[in-house]
Amino acid sequence: MKSVGHERVSIGGFWGEVRRVSAQASLPNIYRRFSETGLFSALLCRKTDPPSHIFYDSDVGKWLEGAAYLLGEFPNAELSKRVSETVDAILASQLPCGYFNSFYQTYKPDKIFCERTEHELYCAGHLIEAAIALSEYGEGRLLPAMERYADYIYDRFFVKRDAKFVTCGHPEIELALARLYAYTGKEKYLTLAKFFLDERGKRREELYEGRVPIYDQSHLPVREQREAVGHAVRALYLYTAMADVGRIAGDRELLLAASALFRNAVSTKMYITGGMGASYDGECFAGEYELPNEYAYSETCSAIALALFCDRLYLADGADERDDVFERALYNNILAGRSWDGKSFFYTNPLEADVRHVRYAREYGDRRYQPILTRREVFDCSCCPPNLVRFFGRLGDFIYAEEDDTLFVRQYFTSEVRTERLSFKMESELPYGGKVHIRVEGKGKIVLRIPSWCDVMEIEERGAKKRSQAAPRLVFEADGVREFTLDLLPRLRFVYANERVTEDGGRKAVCYGPLVLCAEGVDNGGLLRGLALPEERGSMERQGEYLFFTLPAERIRTGGELYSFHPPVRERTTVKLIPYFLWANRGENDMQIWFL
Amino acid sequence: MKSVGHERVSIGGFWGEVRRVSAQASLPNIYRRFSETGLFSALLCRKTDPPSHIFYDSDVGKWLEGAAYLLGEFPNAELSKRVSETVDAILASQLPCGYFNSFYQTYKPDKIFCERTEHELYCAGHLIEAAIALSEYGEGRLLPAMERYADYIYDRFFVKRDAKFVTCGHPEIELALARLYAYTGKEKYLTLAKFFLDERGKRREELYEGRVPIYDQSHLPVREQREAVGHAVRALYLYTAMADVGRIAGDRELLLAASALFRNAVSTKMYITGGMGASYDGECFAGEYELPNEYAYSETCSAIALALFCDRLYLADGADERDDVFERALYNNILAGRSWDGKSFFYTNPLEADVRHVRYAREYGDRRYQPILTRREVFDCSCCPPNLVRFFGRLGDFIYAEEDDTLFVRQYFTSEVRTERLSFKMESELPYGGKVHIRVEGKGKIVLRIPSWCDVMEIEERGAKKRSQAAPRLVFEADGVREFTLDLLPRLRFVYANERVTEDGGRKAVCYGPLVLCAEGVDNGGLLRGLALPEERGSMERQGEYLFFTLPAERIRTGGELYSFHPPVRERTTVKLIPYFLWANRGENDMQIWFL
Repeated sequence: MKSVGHERVSIGGFWGEVRRVSAQASLPNIYRRFSETGLFSALLCRKTDPPSHIFYDSDVGKWLEGAAYLLGEFPNAELSKRVSETVDAILASQLPCGYFNSFYQTYKPDKIFCERTEHELYCAGHLIEAAIALSEYGEGRLLPAMERYADYIYDRFFVKRDAKFVTCGHPEIELALARLYAYTGKEKYLTLAKFFLDERGKRREELYEGRVPIYDQSHLPVREQREAVGHAVRALYLYTAMADVGRIAGDRELLLAASALFRNAVSTKMYITGGMGASYDGECFAGEYELPNEYAYSETCSAIALALFCDRLYLADGADERDDVFERALYNNILAGRSWDGKSFFYTNPLEADVRHVRYAREYGDRRYQPILTRREVFDCSCCPPNLVRFFGRLGDFIYAEEDDTLFVRQYFTSEVRTERLSFKMESELPYGGKVHIRVEGKGKIVLRIPSWCDVMEIEERGAKKRSQAAPRLVFEADGVREFTLDLLPRLRFVYANERVTEDGGRKAVCYGPLVLCAEGVDNGGLLRGLALPEERGSMERQGEYLFFTLPAERIRTGGELYSFHPPVRERTTVKLIPYFLWANRGENDMQIWFL
Repeated sequence: MKSVGHERVSIGGFWGEVRRVSAQASLPNIYRRFSETGLFSALLCRKTDPPSHIFYDSDVGKWLEGAAYLLGEFPNAELSKRVSETVDAILASQLPCGYFNSFYQTYKPDKIFCERTEHELYCAGHLIEAAIALSEYGEGRLLPAMERYADYIYDRFFVKRDAKFVTCGHPEIELALARLYAYTGKEKYLTLAKFFLDERGKRREELYEGRVPIYDQSHLPVREQREAVGHAVRALYLYTAMADVGRIAGDRELLLAASALFRNAVSTKMYITGGMGASYDGECFAGEYELPNEYAYSETCSAIALALFCDRLYLADGADERDDVFERALYNNILAGRSWDGKSFFYTNPLEADVRHVRYAREYGDRRYQPILTRREVFDCSCCPPNLVRFFGRLGDFIYAEEDDTLFVRQYFTSEVRTERLSFKMESELPYGGKVHIRVEGKGKIVLRIPSWCDVMEIEERGAKKRSQAAPRLVFEADGVREFTLDLLPRLRFVYANERVTEDGGRKAVCYGPLVLCAEGVDNGGLLRGLALPEERGSMERQGEYLFFTLPAERIRTGGELYSFHPPVRERTTVKLIPYFLWANRGENDMQIWFL
């Protein structure tokens, strides 16, 4: 099975708007902030004060990649020029041998390929991905340069083996090489990807200060790993590469390990929002079922990495569960990573916010970890903003897949695709409703994934409506033109957490279709704690990008004492919920997902 | 009102046993560990490698104080000799001017009274308290020496004012001076105590690195403080001194501030166990209603400090609520600070333990704060063990108070007291039952506090039983001999937390009399999360020091999925609870107080 690549898919509707904002607000805004903070000028390899950072090239790479996906559909002469200039700078600075890393060339030329923990190959990977995307976009100059760089890495790490480390402390090169192989067909890149995967964990390599090998997944050979551990983004980029190389090389053992890691991550360490990596210490996975809400780390990049991992596993085994998880991460954690106007970003994504705690810590000098409660334009470590842009830019890769004469419809985005024998077009209300108007023309088998949140669905075709229990898939043979409306009938549904989950056992969350909902203080007159939800129903109102749900609720009141022998009274009230992805767009605000 | 001092009270029964173990196990064991770690030899003021620590003198002082209270009742020739030797060492090292601090004299003689944050006056305070206790015990040599030290402090800080700071970063000297005044009658010590109280917060003084003035309660003049903030032990020692000086000096403004701070602490920042200081960062109070269970700091010393604060406020205003809080802290957080055998100690006192989290963090290199789950013999900062010993040693101070011809019975400890006109004797089943057999002889008014957990009580006198709703107090005039049994009828009662409390809103704890109960993994076959308690009843069985309570319970099960649309099923089961003070006496173990 293979993806119907984004180059053959056009996207409109909700996700079209997200992409438009990514192109017209995020892309220029990130360019401006990155310029101001010296990320682009660092490519010139001149010393600055303060010095540049080891991962600047990766952020530039992600920005370039995002620009490549978006500028075709949303042209911007100014930004196109910036892309060209950026490529110019990289080409000008690249060493004759093919090596390019602006930090090492400027500050540590004698330490090239000596320091495992300093993101060198991680940066290379992102630049390789950018080069491929730019090549598709029509800026073809970076690709041969990055191929030369990949060849140089191949020579040093695989042929001569004279680099001072074997695997990079931050995975990324592996999946970039698999992609480069897929794009160029050059076997050596697959060989090198496989080499990096297989060497990991076979020996004790240099570690981050104070960290154990688990931190960068080098505690065991990857084929033997079964528990999602350590730095979540590192882990999920690695697993993504395992799934990719496993599929491409037909390596069942690698796929088996990747599937087991998916099972562990998704069954014991995933937030309801698709968030990954609960621990703020080192941005790591915490233990099984350890999913604190207020102090969730749940980095935006790790949810993106989970989505990439889901995508690759789906292409390998076609299991719809991968796309269910993709959808969960996409509509919730990933989308929440960005303000609705596209200009500011969350690095971490808590599932509960208590403004009093954050302000108390600020004023009273309490240095325990506290989440930020408003999105920011840029971070010192600014991986998430350009990662979102390149992810939204590439959304077209994740909607359709094909195998022989079958078209798999994986996500319900308003979009259009043409394959050799078919044209498929859908207009989707998601996430604001469940209706998907579909028009197929041509010949072939169509397989539609029915999302796991859908329990009843309705098909309206030529005036006739038919309602049925949802099956996992809707399958039909197209022959000529068929037009119908599928309604996935999203409704308010309670979700219950496993009783082992640290804070959520005995509580309930509310979902609507793929959306996890949350209450914000601004809509609920302050205190969110002590709200109980007795009934799985409520009314819905749309206002612009907002959906407001009003549900009957009970407010538990104990009468003011800190501890009391008297059972609390329950007062009837209502609670207003919004989609989690829209939280914190109206100022610093309490927020809650899990209710009594 | 004044306390009937411990010297006039004898204690038996449950607390007699706690005191015996303190004398026969804790006292020698702490001596041994302190000797091994160089606390006693540091008094000789010779440089060592590693060097001694700024707070060693305070730990020695607390050990001496505890020994002074206990060795009279539990004689131990060996330990008496150690006490004499320790006093010898202090006397030998004391400077001619009266100054004594083993750390400063050895390592920083040129910095005496220059560094506000280095515990100099804190150490002095503990040595003054030890000197008073030793004087009562019959070792009278330290008191004049410490008076000379106090005189020197008075001279430097109050008369000449040439010390390089005004108030000490760690309060303690204030309450020690108030006590020294009460013991010696010398006005200058009260003047100095009041001076230190009143100067605090009037100017910006040297701060701990990275800390704000709130940390050591120097953000505002103490009379203006209304919120319990900063380092909890520092705060509560300060408030204790405010109550003490307020009472002694008849300073209503100071008492008003102390009462307001009590109200804030007890109504918004107190654990159900009487624990104080929820934040592990700096051992500080967290925000109002921010009381995490698993990551509670709740230092043993801060619960002791709360008890001292309650005692002083009670003596100032006679409000029984002070003693209710005292009782809560005593039977729960304070008593849990020590293993039942008296040999090992908790510094922090979590209200929930998940062994998996602690082990995961250990193995997987997660450096987020984790509680220790087994008591230890000693700590690097070993303030809690000797603090427990001196506190248990001095328990006799907290049982009775007198005012004119009235005897106030504050706590139901098996004990005997003789005042001028009365002898009062009680044998109490507490905490294992509620019967208190009382025998009074003589003439005078008796006021018995009825604890807040008691709702129905019974009096049996000369064969007749009378049951009644509990009144706040039981008052009678003694004239001749009266003998009766008061039964406070403790029973299993649910306690509900204020809905604002971070983790406990919608949950319930179980108490029996003054005891907070908890479930341990070892009694409940593992998983404690997901246990719901439907009914406020159960059976009780005593085995040695243990009370086992078996309650009907429901176990919530979700069927294994991490998130599910299906409401969890509830399986009937039972849960076995023990007193919280006995937790972690049977190995590393899960523990939980708050249930669904």
